Amino acid sequence: MGNNVYIAGIGQTAVSEHWDLSFRDLALDAIIRAIKDSEIDRKKIEALYVGNMLAGELAQQEHLGALIADHAGLLPIEATHIESACSSGADAMRRAYLHIKSGEIDCALVVGAEQMTDVLTPRATVGLAGATDADYEVAHGFSFVAINALLARRYMYEHNVKHEDLALFPVNSHANAVHNPYAMYRNEISVDTVLKAPRVCDPISVFDSSPICDGSAACILISEELMRDIGMEKRKDHCVSIASSACATDTLTLSAREDPLTLKAAKISAENAYKRAEVEPRDIDLFELHDAFSIMSAMSLEACGFAERGKGCTLAKEGQIALDGSIPICTMGGLKARGHPVGATGVYQIVECVEQLRGEAGKNQVKDAEIAMAQNFGGSGATVITHILRRI
Amino acid sequence: MGNNVYIAGIGQTAVSEHWDLSFRDLALDAIIRAIKDSEIDRKKIEALYVGNMLAGELAQQEHLGALIADHAGLLPIEATHIESACSSGADAMRRAYLHIKSGEIDCALVVGAEQMTDVLTPRATVGLAGATDADYEVAHGFSFVAINALLARRYMYEHNVKHEDLALFPVNSHANAVHNPYAMYRNEISVDTVLKAPRVCDPISVFDSSPICDGSAACILISEELMRDIGMEKRKDHCVSIASSACATDTLTLSAREDPLTLKAAKISAENAYKRAEVEPRDIDLFELHDAFSIMSAMSLEACGFAERGKGCTLAKEGQIALDGSIPICTMGGLKARGHPVGATGVYQIVECVEQLRGEAGKNQVKDAEIAMAQNFGGSGATVITHILRRI
Repeated sequence: MGNNVYIAGIGQTAVSEHWDLSFRDLALDAIIRAIKDSEIDRKKIEALYVGNMLAGELAQQEHLGALIADHAGLLPIEATHIESACSSGADAMRRAYLHIKSGEIDCALVVGAEQMTDVLTPRATVGLAGATDADYEVAHGFSFVAINALLARRYMYEHNVKHEDLALFPVNSHANAVHNPYAMYRNEISVDTVLKAPRVCDPISVFDSSPICDGSAACILISEELMRDIGMEKRKDHCVSIASSACATDTLTLSAREDPLTLKAAKISAENAYKRAEVEPRDIDLFELHDAFSIMSAMSLEACGFAERGKGCTLAKEGQIALDGSIPICTMGGLKARGHPVGATGVYQIVECVEQLRGEAGKNQVKDAEIAMAQNFGGSGATVITHILRRI
Repeated sequence: MGNNVYIAGIGQTAVSEHWDLSFRDLALDAIIRAIKDSEIDRKKIEALYVGNMLAGELAQQEHLGALIADHAGLLPIEATHIESACSSGADAMRRAYLHIKSGEIDCALVVGAEQMTDVLTPRATVGLAGATDADYEVAHGFSFVAINALLARRYMYEHNVKHEDLALFPVNSHANAVHNPYAMYRNEISVDTVLKAPRVCDPISVFDSSPICDGSAACILISEELMRDIGMEKRKDHCVSIASSACATDTLTLSAREDPLTLKAAKISAENAYKRAEVEPRDIDLFELHDAFSIMSAMSLEACGFAERGKGCTLAKEGQIALDGSIPICTMGGLKARGHPVGATGVYQIVECVEQLRGEAGKNQVKDAEIAMAQNFGGSGATVITHILRRI
């Protein structure tokens, strides 16, 4: 099945409104950090994978592979741009992983970058709606928040769940963001903060929604062969193994799903990732899930086998999602509080898993973390990419 | 180096202004044809790679992987969208090829699709400019035609070449398109037609430029193992081997290039492709090059080792680029006359190479074609992806 693949370096930019940085400088910032962290000669990098969703629509800039390869001084290396809406970051990771697995290269650079605030056409909501179906949903005025509001309302009705139950997820994310220097919102909130906040689309309040923001994160991926060349033993505490990677899809439109309350692609993607890594949900020490909206956290936990159908909030109520719980989630703040610069998010999730597995997560360290899972969604779970990482 | 990869099926839609088809139906048309041509059970398809440049900007539709997987009835398979401007099609091919080479899957579907005429925001020229540098070129009013006009003017001055020399390329492409039922312009033209046509941007006339149009093309890629399973001998006349695949990059801006008249990425990409396939330029029986503008044909032939610097037009003058010449190019009409639906073009090129290698190119058949090369450009050669295909 080809080579094993390792993450040898990570870098991230604090999520924020980066009006001071152009898109390319934003990407470059994370790239420089990742290269430095890897201690690998940048001449060893053979391919660049850029994850981004919105630069074409908001900044009229496509062709991001070559653009960033040039700006990072990496020409004439192979470069490409991967897009699968909000899962573009994890998708770029997966393509780079497969490239190394093919045996053709030994070192790839992955960067996820998104500039949503300082752009030519400031209409992030319209842009984000491109993750769902332009002809069958957006044409009817459906925005992304509206889709999640419908889901949340149905979920609450069907499973007898209250808004205060769902609110526990953003409360957890905010608590974890306090000690993450790269997080956008480093303040604690309470269930009351969520409930009393203005509604974006009822029942979703401002605090149920991840923010529109700018950010970038990067990883250096290497083959087993390169790992040996640079001295495996020396890098053992620093490198993390990609135990598995998997991708599955579902309909873009909610209306076309047999059961909108089941994230089918998340389930299949996670199951394939478990199988390929030869682990089970109970082996996962932490789970960076895609909490774009509170409702997604509950449904993700269920889809991935951590909770029964309709019981995702129970884990939160029991404190199991906290750093010392049975399945800590969003350990560095998640999409809600670290921030959700869409095409970058999947790479941030991986970077945070690596921090945890290296034991470098500071006050947010999950004790004895050996195996971490990251799951990135495009749209309302229409593309779902799961990675399982393991300490070596 | 992993598995060998074969092209087991091809499909294409006639390039045209498809006001009757939505983007997804356009893509589906080529997919159905490719699946049918492959005679492979569609349940065997494990991943979908969509090449597209402009759907986000012109139709506000991103997330094309899952969208097309759904529309083609392929859920919940893995799906993604690859973008590298006008080389998105070949880029999607390359990613699918690497996926199979990794050993993780045995069958992938690649579709390149682009709808440039019947869109929400009809501004293809602005969209296409996203292939170059939005901050440093487009902001100064540089369109894609303007870039090529500058290049052509400099090339003509430096190499003492006349417009009538460059005009031989579109004349060749139009001659070849006459017998291609999928081509947009099936009429012959003369050098005079090119010279007397209205200028788009002097010295580039309408007939030096590939058209804005809609189209889609698809391929089924399979592993050696699946090839054996379905009976290799039985498929020998139908399947074509991907002998090599390579990608290289250059600056997006012309101003940043040491020598704008050398297509450096095309040179590196071709050299890597030759090396990996263990062939030389003289072994290539036909060459589907990226004739987005006449000037690109001349420069491509030089970059890929078929002509000396500044001598690309000589090959045309000597008749060497014709179907019975030493290096037939654009054998089914090229970008100029078959048409250039940008994100689809790279897949059309591959499909046409397969037709030639199968001996199914009808009146355009290159005699005894054994080895074909396709080269797809993003921007003015800022991303260049080369594939070499071989009859088995």
